[in-house]
Amino acid sequence: MTAYDPDNIFAKILRGEIPNHTVYEDEGTLAFLDIMPIVDGHTLVIPKKPARNIFDVEPEDLATLVKAAQKVSLAACKAFGADGHTLRLHSEASGGQEVPHIHFHLLPMKTGVPVRPRAMADHGVLAEHAKRIREMLK
Amino acid sequence: MTAYDPDNIFAKILRGEIPNHTVYEDEGTLAFLDIMPIVDGHTLVIPKKPARNIFDVEPEDLATLVKAAQKVSLAACKAFGADGHTLRLHSEASGGQEVPHIHFHLLPMKTGVPVRPRAMADHGVLAEHAKRIREMLK
Repeated sequence: MTAYDPDNIFAKILRGEIPNHTVYEDEGTLAFLDIMPIVDGHTLVIPKKPARNIFDVEPEDLATLVKAAQKVSLAACKAFGADGHTLRLHSEASGGQEVPHIHFHLLPMKTGVPVRPRAMADHGVLAEHAKRIREMLK
Repeated sequence: MTAYDPDNIFAKILRGEIPNHTVYEDEGTLAFLDIMPIVDGHTLVIPKKPARNIFDVEPEDLATLVKAAQKVSLAACKAFGADGHTLRLHSEASGGQEVPHIHFHLLPMKTGVPVRPRAMADHGVLAEHAKRIREMLK
């Protein structure tokens, strides 16, 4: 199994070395917006504890993570008026993983609105979107 | 919120009214092969307790489900020599949900092998594939 790389971009986010648009945080979890969203409100939820993906994460840590993912998903759907949702967990390159720190993708989906190609979003827009989700979590 | 439909196809599978290719079962969970697999070993993991999707499942039940999903995923990847994995949870039609009983899709992924279009699989092949995963869970 490939070892955890402590210099991956999410590890840097967790250490505060790279800024992020946080939507939720608790003792063990951080949720922030994907900077290349394929839908409005596209959020990533990660554990603070190092793990690469489904192949090495401790089952209890995965369970804690999915509960946080659900909480944030429901808030994001409310924030964006989404009537559906897709959750994804990609593990290793062949599974579609891009950053080697385990993360759920949360996608609030709306009827008739397809996903967009990945493209860097405007940080002002992301800041406003993150605020909308945080409001729904209050 | 839309109510749970007790006549959905997975409820019928849970009641034994429709056969399935079971790969794993415990007190609260059933895992069986998707009959329209997009990769070899494409497995669905469902709770026995009724829930429609991410919008109504109890957080603790979702946590239990994802732990079973991880266990089966690792076995399926071993069974099919997969070096990656994708897990998906679709909620409501706009989120890609087809059967209204919550289910994780488990996709063992291999480098260089893309997903196939959904198409009904041969039941003899599915039976052999289910056996391969069950062997890895022993």
